[in-house]
Amino acid sequence: MTLARERLAASRVAHLATVRPDGAPHVVPIVFALDGDRVVTAIDDKPKRSTALQRLANIESESRVSLLADRYDEDWTRLWWVRVDGVAEILRGGGDADRAIDLLADRYGPYRERRPSGAVIRIEISRWVTWPDP
Amino acid sequence: MTLARERLAASRVAHLATVRPDGAPHVVPIVFALDGDRVVTAIDDKPKRSTALQRLANIESESRVSLLADRYDEDWTRLWWVRVDGVAEILRGGGDADRAIDLLADRYGPYRERRPSGAVIRIEISRWVTWPDP
Repeated sequence: MTLARERLAASRVAHLATVRPDGAPHVVPIVFALDGDRVVTAIDDKPKRSTALQRLANIESESRVSLLADRYDEDWTRLWWVRVDGVAEILRGGGDADRAIDLLADRYGPYRERRPSGAVIRIEISRWVTWPDP
Repeated sequence: MTLARERLAASRVAHLATVRPDGAPHVVPIVFALDGDRVVTAIDDKPKRSTALQRLANIESESRVSLLADRYDEDWTRLWWVRVDGVAEILRGGGDADRAIDLLADRYGPYRERRPSGAVIRIEISRWVTWPDP
């Protein structure tokens, strides 16, 4: 496992950038699981919050996404980030969505108590970018 | 000062989403300062790293940006995020750039030891979005 993969896999939160239908960028924090060359995340809200819907609308309009995990430290020699670019698809139920939710529940206690009920976003990673350069 | 403003102002790192000239999203962590209704950040690299250049090229092509600050906690009742959407401009030297760098140096020790030498990105905030809803 490369250092970049290890860092992303261990991160508890990441930042998902998408593009709105009008061409402006959008970014939200997500909890996620890394599954080989894919990242999965779920919409966990019962109430259909506008931010959750926004990310789905964005992906339906532009499937390319960018996902960032990073560490901040006041000692800047200890900073790092890992970015993956990829293409997202939305799974609304089915075996792949169930498997994704299982992976998420493995990682996050609140998801074990209450499985996310909304759509799953699955990102096929096409590029890894990491800083500092390996 | 609203809670959202207080949280953004106190955050040590934020995540800047831009759109590439080809329409794909891009996201990087940044250090920044909040200055009224503006956010400033600087390119601090002497070597012209591709990631630094990428964000400038993106802004030159699409000036709308989105910036996220957030806190993760294993207790999900303690999660929060603040997002500001706005329009970015690039300052290459001059009084406004100097003032921005002064603000950044006030906040970050490494910038006091070595002032960033590259361009300044200044974002005019047009919208605040916060979660949980206030």
